[in-house]
Amino acid sequence: MVNIQLIKELSQQTETKIVMVVVDGIGGLPYPGTNCTALEEAITPNLDKLAASSDCGLIEPVALGVTPGSGPSHLALFGYDPMEYEIGRGVLEALGTGVELKPSDVAARGNFCTVDDTGVILDRRAGRIPTEENRRLIEKLRRITVEGIEVILEPGSFHRFVAVFRGENLSGEIKDTDPQHIGERPKDAIPHNSEAVLTASLVDKWISEAAKVLRDEHPANMVLLRGFARLPEIPDMSQVFKLTPAAIACYPMYRGLAKLVGMDILETGGINISDEVKTLTAHFDKYDFFYFHIKDTDSSGEDGDFARKVQVIEEFDKFVPSILGLGPDVLIVTGDHSTPAKMKGHSWHPVPFLIHSEWVRPQGIEGFGESTCASGNLGVFPSLGVLPLAMANALKLSKFGA
Amino acid sequence: MVNIQLIKELSQQTETKIVMVVVDGIGGLPYPGTNCTALEEAITPNLDKLAASSDCGLIEPVALGVTPGSGPSHLALFGYDPMEYEIGRGVLEALGTGVELKPSDVAARGNFCTVDDTGVILDRRAGRIPTEENRRLIEKLRRITVEGIEVILEPGSFHRFVAVFRGENLSGEIKDTDPQHIGERPKDAIPHNSEAVLTASLVDKWISEAAKVLRDEHPANMVLLRGFARLPEIPDMSQVFKLTPAAIACYPMYRGLAKLVGMDILETGGINISDEVKTLTAHFDKYDFFYFHIKDTDSSGEDGDFARKVQVIEEFDKFVPSILGLGPDVLIVTGDHSTPAKMKGHSWHPVPFLIHSEWVRPQGIEGFGESTCASGNLGVFPSLGVLPLAMANALKLSKFGA
Repeated sequence: MVNIQLIKELSQQTETKIVMVVVDGIGGLPYPGTNCTALEEAITPNLDKLAASSDCGLIEPVALGVTPGSGPSHLALFGYDPMEYEIGRGVLEALGTGVELKPSDVAARGNFCTVDDTGVILDRRAGRIPTEENRRLIEKLRRITVEGIEVILEPGSFHRFVAVFRGENLSGEIKDTDPQHIGERPKDAIPHNSEAVLTASLVDKWISEAAKVLRDEHPANMVLLRGFARLPEIPDMSQVFKLTPAAIACYPMYRGLAKLVGMDILETGGINISDEVKTLTAHFDKYDFFYFHIKDTDSSGEDGDFARKVQVIEEFDKFVPSILGLGPDVLIVTGDHSTPAKMKGHSWHPVPFLIHSEWVRPQGIEGFGESTCASGNLGVFPSLGVLPLAMANALKLSKFGA
Repeated sequence: MVNIQLIKELSQQTETKIVMVVVDGIGGLPYPGTNCTALEEAITPNLDKLAASSDCGLIEPVALGVTPGSGPSHLALFGYDPMEYEIGRGVLEALGTGVELKPSDVAARGNFCTVDDTGVILDRRAGRIPTEENRRLIEKLRRITVEGIEVILEPGSFHRFVAVFRGENLSGEIKDTDPQHIGERPKDAIPHNSEAVLTASLVDKWISEAAKVLRDEHPANMVLLRGFARLPEIPDMSQVFKLTPAAIACYPMYRGLAKLVGMDILETGGINISDEVKTLTAHFDKYDFFYFHIKDTDSSGEDGDFARKVQVIEEFDKFVPSILGLGPDVLIVTGDHSTPAKMKGHSWHPVPFLIHSEWVRPQGIEGFGESTCASGNLGVFPSLGVLPLAMANALKLSKFGA
């Protein structure tokens, strides 16, 4: 049982330092042809040695059987109940493109689509147009002006883009214009409530301008928007947990998620684990909590590339001594969720977890992996418990009651 | 952590099939003279092989330390929080006799008892009269008519029977007429609220008629009623989980419990596991969720008959290959609760659990039993998590959040 309200009340600022390494999608399944998961297959002498002198277990990202997206699974690791704080689809996409969202912005996910002469949708993805074509069209759409709002557009891959509506008194309470079916017309932007009436009319104005701009294009002659949302109101980690937190992450979405909970975002100056470790080293004195994100374990899992996932884990293993060498009081290595190469996507399976500090009960487990962690002394516990456990091991929680 | 509301939102219909075998009361305790539970003592090569390639753990029916009845322990396995949906005692007894309850019926559990000349209770169970005597008396009581209601009576064993009051505007909110003590008179049927006034008066009329009919009988010269209840309002599994569920169970109570959650009840045409497997085979194409119930492990446990419990488990083991041969995407073997022969009754002990699918992380545990499951990779988790886990393994849950 995790009680974040109590953790908040007990939290106290100290000099001790926590490093939480999130190896994205680290958990897996035995890969066909092996009896091992990627983590078990990988040769990881440093992680194995660390696990032997750590408390180990498995963490459950959101709830038993639930496969989480990156948003909820990260919020849980940061100590925020993902059932309480919801991150809208549009916001997550915007974070992923690196758009700096203001609290009053409304973000949506966009698709280019194909409509016939009468406006009926023939293809919701416009034949998955090339990303280059997408960029050209976004350039054209950027020239549209709608009085009362600024519209920020960022191309994604293939038919996808992000639209951010910036202005005063905007609301994210708008229904998708994407009907999710072909053979129908794109819907108007319908407000869920009276506060969203203005926003809906401005969005509709922009869409009708976009339709004019795209009229003679083919196959991408229309746009669909969905997942309208504003930034969730989440109290900062400094306020809730009295931490001074910083994020080291190469990909925009994870920097965005960290920013949502008030972390300082450190520039890594590169996209390698090596660059990230340099950043950690350079800033180690200035913060007492570091979120350290490794992306490629997830990407390779999503691609079904078991060998690549093994390789990324082995690469990270080489940097474990450097991180330990900085002398963090608490070092955690875990993931936000599992991404088995066998499933080519996120999954519900609990995630290997280790925590190293002066205050653990090491069992000397043999190798850091799903099976060994399953019999680890921490058992299976919710990801929401990771931050409380980290703070306890950093002696950042005062005693409850007398 | 289990979140059924979330599971409901994420559930999606697919072609995949789940078979959940509930070996009633399968869990046990080391039996005096052995160091094994019945499950550990039983020779079960097929279950052992299955467990080695499954995810294993222990499930907790309701809450730590709580010994459940069949109602709550089954509801939990079906994905319904037993603390939220209460099945009244009268309803459960009625289901056990096979009475087809209508939503407006009020069911109660009855005892024949012995009263003295002044109406004071001398024996709440009328000396546990023979079942044959019970049947004779029920025949006499069936002749009673009370205007405004039909009263359906079913004899149980010894002094027990079931009374179902059928009519319009009836309420189950009536206090027991059984004072639970000798030396007192049977109580009137007292309504808990104004809506139950009519029902209470009709019940009292029937009881006074019954007293007249039984006046010259001995020792069963009066009746006591308790556990008045109507069917709980439980949404169907098809609605909550988008499943097309069917039940295979030889005993009426379990068919009744399955019907409560909207399962189709399949005729087994017999009371052997063999008949049940034939039923499963015959209907395998038509449903995507099968509840498969085995009763005699519980009965033998209740009787304190360790050897018989071992035998039933060994008998079931022989059918495991036939069930696997049907090719279910997910196969679960577990129990609703423990029934240690040593205790001659239900107990609070967590229950061995295995789940087999393409998406598990088998640990190769040696033998399906309480000890091996205790170190299984699923740990100890609530029975309420079984259905979510089954649906995840059947790929029937979409991703949560982005």
